[in-house]
Amino acid sequence: MILCDVGNTTFHFNINGKEKKYSLSAQLPDLEERVYFISVNENATAKLKFFYDDIFDLEPLIKFESKYKGLGLDRKIACIGIENGVVVDAGSAITVDIIKKGKHKGGFILPGIASYKKIYPKISHKLQFDFNTKVNLDKIPLCTQDAISYGILQAIINPIKKISKKQEVIFTGGDGEFLSQFIKNSIYKKDLIFENMKGIINANNCIA
Amino acid sequence: MILCDVGNTTFHFNINGKEKKYSLSAQLPDLEERVYFISVNENATAKLKFFYDDIFDLEPLIKFESKYKGLGLDRKIACIGIENGVVVDAGSAITVDIIKKGKHKGGFILPGIASYKKIYPKISHKLQFDFNTKVNLDKIPLCTQDAISYGILQAIINPIKKISKKQEVIFTGGDGEFLSQFIKNSIYKKDLIFENMKGIINANNCIA
Repeated sequence: MILCDVGNTTFHFNINGKEKKYSLSAQLPDLEERVYFISVNENATAKLKFFYDDIFDLEPLIKFESKYKGLGLDRKIACIGIENGVVVDAGSAITVDIIKKGKHKGGFILPGIASYKKIYPKISHKLQFDFNTKVNLDKIPLCTQDAISYGILQAIINPIKKISKKQEVIFTGGDGEFLSQFIKNSIYKKDLIFENMKGIINANNCIA
Repeated sequence: MILCDVGNTTFHFNINGKEKKYSLSAQLPDLEERVYFISVNENATAKLKFFYDDIFDLEPLIKFESKYKGLGLDRKIACIGIENGVVVDAGSAITVDIIKKGKHKGGFILPGIASYKKIYPKISHKLQFDFNTKVNLDKIPLCTQDAISYGILQAIINPIKKISKKQEVIFTGGDGEFLSQFIKNSIYKKDLIFENMKGIINANNCIA
């Protein structure tokens, strides 16, 4: 089965269990089977349609109720099947969604780590830095590199902790594994989106 | 007395008590008196030197001890005279410094609100938004505008709350007044930097 999660910056494929990411401008792989996809990016969807003959958009099959206006398709899919918890998809943006008793209660959006890294040097060339992934969050920083690395991590972790209280936090996305180490009651599900896409395909009997 | 706080994006003047900001590329005002200044921006300092005959750099007069390597001059000046507290200068960057028993213990750096506003639309055009300064931080957001506005505010407020515990937080800088409303034990000192510059001038008898 071939799955594709089309995001803001990449085509993320799962080809018979093997994952591969392509930038939006890259040459896409030759594929002979149906490509099941979800997309939050119209331009990239158009490229997918141009490249492949047999593509199948899962969007119409997704029934997800929420009072949230404009909830991205990837966020809906990530939340499917969760009864209680906070779902964090840490990619180019970090989306945080809250589910209670199976109902989506809303959510918020933080910049992704890659975006944070780009901001500081634009404010001042003195804020050039290499991200210190091992900065000690229990000590007050004593140099610029740590002051920024600490700032980025606290700016991401604390809002998630605050809203999750003691509910479980389910991380996915490129920075999900890294960020999950900072939150006690959390798990990392690398393939949350792909697993839920498969679930939708199987439930709807739409295999080619 | 004419004071100038040269930052990353502006010349901030205090001319006999009246404040005025100029962008770094703007024409500077004609001034006949000595200009006392501090600067974190070498290029802007050069412009100041070119424009005015009598300028006086306060940097050599500032005695401020800290184990923090590379602490910006503006941060040192903001912290002068504080015995216990957290000093937050909310400008193009948001610097947060912790002082205990008169000693600087370190600090961290967050992006300023203006920087946050610029990041989101660069991640995706779907994250274009108008900042909702009145977003309710006690409710989970239910639309993109609130999801981003909430994200920005929580990303700034929570790291400051976490490090301040119950110490007083002293805000200054362009967004200081706005942000101070979100932290209970806080005050806003609009002229913290200028007041401390005056203190240094008076203590050192360097009036022209």
